[in-house]
Amino acid sequence: MAIGIEIIRDLRQRTGAGVLDCKKALEEADGDIEKAIELLRKKGLAIAARKADREANEGLVEAYIHPGGRLGALLELNCETDFVARTEDFRGLAHDLAMQVAATNPQYLTPEDVPSEVLERQREWQREQLGGGKPEEVVERILEGKVRKYYQEVCLLEQTFIRDEGLIVRDLITSKIAKLGENIKVRRFARFELEGH
Amino acid sequence: MAIGIEIIRDLRQRTGAGVLDCKKALEEADGDIEKAIELLRKKGLAIAARKADREANEGLVEAYIHPGGRLGALLELNCETDFVARTEDFRGLAHDLAMQVAATNPQYLTPEDVPSEVLERQREWQREQLGGGKPEEVVERILEGKVRKYYQEVCLLEQTFIRDEGLIVRDLITSKIAKLGENIKVRRFARFELEGH
Repeated sequence: MAIGIEIIRDLRQRTGAGVLDCKKALEEADGDIEKAIELLRKKGLAIAARKADREANEGLVEAYIHPGGRLGALLELNCETDFVARTEDFRGLAHDLAMQVAATNPQYLTPEDVPSEVLERQREWQREQLGGGKPEEVVERILEGKVRKYYQEVCLLEQTFIRDEGLIVRDLITSKIAKLGENIKVRRFARFELEGH
Repeated sequence: MAIGIEIIRDLRQRTGAGVLDCKKALEEADGDIEKAIELLRKKGLAIAARKADREANEGLVEAYIHPGGRLGALLELNCETDFVARTEDFRGLAHDLAMQVAATNPQYLTPEDVPSEVLERQREWQREQLGGGKPEEVVERILEGKVRKYYQEVCLLEQTFIRDEGLIVRDLITSKIAKLGENIKVRRFARFELEGH
């Protein structure tokens, strides 16, 4: 089918992918932009996976202070070269992530960073909430769902992006890896908030 | 002796103390402004000591990102009321302290925060540097001096203020306590720097 220029431009803006990739994805998706985004995301994931092992020691330290000054976050975002660190895309990502940390108060970066005793406590607490009487395999399945939900709350990379509810932070970063062509990693973050606020 | 208006204004600017206090201090110091500052500082210390037990849960979270974005600091500075938190003096202090943390990379807030095993390692290392053959009491005296110097390097409150080499950070804060009339405390700080920079 023929793909219009406007929809290609639209897709480029939303994904950061190149013109040809956007055209191909739209053709494959029969002009359905959401489907094309999904296709590009999968492709982005593939690109990102190839870059995920590369060292990333350049980047930016970025801060976000919430208006009023009662709450702030500091975040280190790494990439491979100083060149990419200076791009508007990378700067924007660092800013958005610092704001995300300030807004959502994540405790860990990834599920692997949650200490096993914390996870165990979570599971025990959830098990108590469920009460007795259910078959163990049903309980296990429910607990798995609860743990996944817990990760989505406390792990930065699993959280919903505050500026786009259709996007997980991990996928946001992946899309930037695909666009900028370098491995990108959140190295660490801190968040301070005045007590009782 | 008669104290001129200019020198009083000068002293007020440098200490933040009131007109009458400045006049009195200058009279007591026979018009010697450095001596008057010392007198006011001692007085400031007295004022500060009376306020040091008061709760301080208001304040500001402030960030400083060094130009280039490779290095940044986040700091929480507490005072007693939101009113004081909004003053230019308090904001300036928060900014200066965040910049101090970025510039000097303190590891602790006060000497009491240095873990005893870290201190012990420091002392052992310094003792090795000294070599043998000195009487133990001489060694002890030298070690005390070295430990004091170590504190001045790694403890924020013991450091020399980067914007005024004649001032220790602790005394800078004390002078603001005296000026603003509220207890002021650094609650915590964080500092991120790109690796290898």
